[in-house]
Amino acid sequence: MPAGMPLADDRRHPVVSAPNASAAGPAPNLQARRIGIDTYRENVVYLRRDCPVVRAEGFQALAKVEVTAGGRTILAVLNVVDDQRLLGECELGLSEETWTQLAVADGAPLTVRHAEPPPSMWALKRKIGGERLAAEEFAAIVRDIAAHRYSKIELAAFVVATDQFALDRDEVLYLTQAMVDVGQRLAWPQQHPVVDKHCIGGIPGNRTSMLIVPIVAAHGMLIPKTSSRAITSPAGTADTMDVLAEVELPFERLREIVREHHGCLAWGGRAALSPADDVLISVERPLSIDAPGQLVASILSKKIAAGSTHLVLDIPLGPTAKVRSMVQAQRLKKLFEYVARHVGMTLDVVITDGRQPVGRGIGPRLEARDVMQVLHGEADAPADLRNKALRLAGRVLEFDPDLRGGDGFALARDILDSGRARLTMAAIIAAQGAREFDWRNPPLAAMTHEVTAGEAGVVTAIDCERLSRIARLAGAPNAAGAGVDLLRKIGDPVACGEPLYRIYADTMAELQFAREVATRASGFRVGQEPEAEAASEFAPEF
Amino acid sequence: MPAGMPLADDRRHPVVSAPNASAAGPAPNLQARRIGIDTYRENVVYLRRDCPVVRAEGFQALAKVEVTAGGRTILAVLNVVDDQRLLGECELGLSEETWTQLAVADGAPLTVRHAEPPPSMWALKRKIGGERLAAEEFAAIVRDIAAHRYSKIELAAFVVATDQFALDRDEVLYLTQAMVDVGQRLAWPQQHPVVDKHCIGGIPGNRTSMLIVPIVAAHGMLIPKTSSRAITSPAGTADTMDVLAEVELPFERLREIVREHHGCLAWGGRAALSPADDVLISVERPLSIDAPGQLVASILSKKIAAGSTHLVLDIPLGPTAKVRSMVQAQRLKKLFEYVARHVGMTLDVVITDGRQPVGRGIGPRLEARDVMQVLHGEADAPADLRNKALRLAGRVLEFDPDLRGGDGFALARDILDSGRARLTMAAIIAAQGAREFDWRNPPLAAMTHEVTAGEAGVVTAIDCERLSRIARLAGAPNAAGAGVDLLRKIGDPVACGEPLYRIYADTMAELQFAREVATRASGFRVGQEPEAEAASEFAPEF
Repeated sequence: MPAGMPLADDRRHPVVSAPNASAAGPAPNLQARRIGIDTYRENVVYLRRDCPVVRAEGFQALAKVEVTAGGRTILAVLNVVDDQRLLGECELGLSEETWTQLAVADGAPLTVRHAEPPPSMWALKRKIGGERLAAEEFAAIVRDIAAHRYSKIELAAFVVATDQFALDRDEVLYLTQAMVDVGQRLAWPQQHPVVDKHCIGGIPGNRTSMLIVPIVAAHGMLIPKTSSRAITSPAGTADTMDVLAEVELPFERLREIVREHHGCLAWGGRAALSPADDVLISVERPLSIDAPGQLVASILSKKIAAGSTHLVLDIPLGPTAKVRSMVQAQRLKKLFEYVARHVGMTLDVVITDGRQPVGRGIGPRLEARDVMQVLHGEADAPADLRNKALRLAGRVLEFDPDLRGGDGFALARDILDSGRARLTMAAIIAAQGAREFDWRNPPLAAMTHEVTAGEAGVVTAIDCERLSRIARLAGAPNAAGAGVDLLRKIGDPVACGEPLYRIYADTMAELQFAREVATRASGFRVGQEPEAEAASEFAPEF
Repeated sequence: MPAGMPLADDRRHPVVSAPNASAAGPAPNLQARRIGIDTYRENVVYLRRDCPVVRAEGFQALAKVEVTAGGRTILAVLNVVDDQRLLGECELGLSEETWTQLAVADGAPLTVRHAEPPPSMWALKRKIGGERLAAEEFAAIVRDIAAHRYSKIELAAFVVATDQFALDRDEVLYLTQAMVDVGQRLAWPQQHPVVDKHCIGGIPGNRTSMLIVPIVAAHGMLIPKTSSRAITSPAGTADTMDVLAEVELPFERLREIVREHHGCLAWGGRAALSPADDVLISVERPLSIDAPGQLVASILSKKIAAGSTHLVLDIPLGPTAKVRSMVQAQRLKKLFEYVARHVGMTLDVVITDGRQPVGRGIGPRLEARDVMQVLHGEADAPADLRNKALRLAGRVLEFDPDLRGGDGFALARDILDSGRARLTMAAIIAAQGAREFDWRNPPLAAMTHEVTAGEAGVVTAIDCERLSRIARLAGAPNAAGAGVDLLRKIGDPVACGEPLYRIYADTMAELQFAREVATRASGFRVGQEPEAEAASEFAPEF
């Protein structure tokens, strides 16, 4: 639980009260026992069916209980144990997540009682019923989520209820502010602007941040970039940067690096910038829900908490991207702009070409290779990655009041082509802690399989979701050398039997998994020419 | 999984395929190990983190996996085990639910692989997105739910997405039909009509079925009543009947009893009439969601499956009932009528007074006492329970084509007052297997606490939800003698310090729990006279 978070009791609903608000009541004494089961972000505790406490309290499997030990209280789901070998009669088994949160020793005394419903339950029910919520209702919900008071089922209910058209723009603003309020905030004293760049995701290989940060930092603007690791994708920026340098650094060290080099590329997970978002992701991921309101609140709350004042936001548009029509892209753009204006952040939204993966590699080492090829100005560096990074970096540079509107691209290109971006990147890598990585000869996974064209023609479409899935099944991002290397992109001619892409995997099992899915549908469409539909429907800025 | 349920593969969405549809792939061999953890209706399996299969397949905690053993395949959520004492390196731990479903022996070989998404996932996503679904889409979703292919999170998503205004009346019809199609169906050859009575729930003490069944059966109409046990309430009809007689009977025995006595009062859980509904309840319960569409589909699908042709449906209306305004009650009534007409069921919906609990007792033995008092014509039997049961029984009797509309109530009263209903009930109890129960001196729980009025006046309101909660905390329905006995009802005068109700509990812990909640808010309002609001807003038929 974040320090200083209020355990507020909203008293509008009479039945509800905050955990611990009531008198102590009966205090059954149990002993803690670490059970060594990883239940991810779900708190689970275990009690024997014949434990006297189970009988006395009338506990049933899946009941929500409140566990208190050494002054800490958490909520958890109860699993009832029938096997006497697992637990002693008066032991409470703790899953890894609850063990960490309670921070007790084996055998420590603890008490268990029926959990009161989370204080914000009435607000959740109103939202499920389709009603509009006020700022303080979002605050109550987000506090409960950050404090792990919602069950998986309640989280899923919140995510679905706020999906799609269920939140108006003021509600998105309230949700964003509520998410900022429960997390830590970073400050960059005497620095203005503090710039950042973010992409809403969904496009494999889209590693522009690793080019934009050195370009912008080389210009002297502050760009303290924190990124996530992959959630549903084959690599996040933090996974790819991890190939080149240490990314898990204490905040004080990051601050020094940014002071000296104007930029960093670090993993943002340690900072607890948006603890409620971290919890929500655990249900958004399995449902693959990316509701506009949640997306905006999630991204902007993290950027505000990170202390950014100016943000360039990349919304890729394409038939297999997250955003699939220009109408949808424009609506999302306006929603981002509305919330950003009301929280005092300068925002430049750019709708980009999301019809296919960016660059060639999909997977941490393959993507790191692409980035280094561009930084070093290699002749065969992926042109689309270079071009996209330059254009976005240009938009970031134009936050500089001394730069004329429209001059950003040329300046970004100068900084890249002159080698200054490469030198800045080298300095950032050295400061974070460089890793061995020969990008000219990257250590890729040993097992490979090439997927070939079934007919001759021109590549007319590449399915981003399908390629992501294949790269993940091959082992990315956990296996850093695994993934997919694209040998053809949209518009490239291909003969029948020629390879479209190569799958890399560490183990036979993983290779076979990925191969099986690629065999069922390769994710490539080969036709006679780029289809008209794609040209008319998707006309992003670049 | 119900026999004969098709494992259909809906091919509209290219990424999705039915489990087992793809080539066998790698077949990691693991040994089954019963883990003895009760995860209620959620399938959970356990694997050690250092198990070679975990590494090879890239499994992560909470991954969805497909487990196959001896020709059976189930889906489950994976918990990763770090404690080497729990499992051998190549053992797959099975929770009680999965152990039962797979029906393997300890040490039996089984294989585990990444689960494909359920075939209906695309339809679920469309519903989450607010789109209208067709009949075959509901069929696909309900098949997956009945086959345990949905995770808790996916179930919650479906329940919330179909909540409130999200289903139109044809969609409710499709959902109802889909739920009938995946379950068993009972047949009553050569019997017409087969009548039933059902209440949507929410009112404690509302045990009219135990009076209506003997009245209607005594008239010679077939009323094979199956009821549920309590889900969120302090007692279901099956729990209360269980005080008087055996309720878990094989279907063939029930058929004999109904042939001889025209009625029965049995637990419906064994018949698997609506397996999808049984699964959905596991998430509706913790969310306390009772969406109109789900309510209609759940109730009507069970009645159709039970072979009923005619149904009287009780919708209680009150400020703490499930339905809280006449507009809402009328809307729900029309939705029930629409679906019933299209599935060929004769339906009579009655909106009743749901402003307070019915009768005096709340909890199995207390309610059984009330019922027996009415059956035996005791002078101090609860008049509201008697009156409501007579009116509803009258409406059921009017399904008899030989009875004139409006004559039902008088006939029901004759059957009750003549003692014929009591004799029929005695016959049914004997046939099902009578239990010892001295209703004149019921064996109630030993610990009691009286909740008293804080001021003098007249009882103006009783909170059904609050009283249910207090009775449950006191131990009902698991402790059959526990619960709440109401000593005052709406309109009754009370002096300051006089008791409003008495709590019964088996243990001190339970008594204290219930008492604590009652002390915070008793659930009774005492004022000067029944408030005008209640009279105008709630004007049900009776």
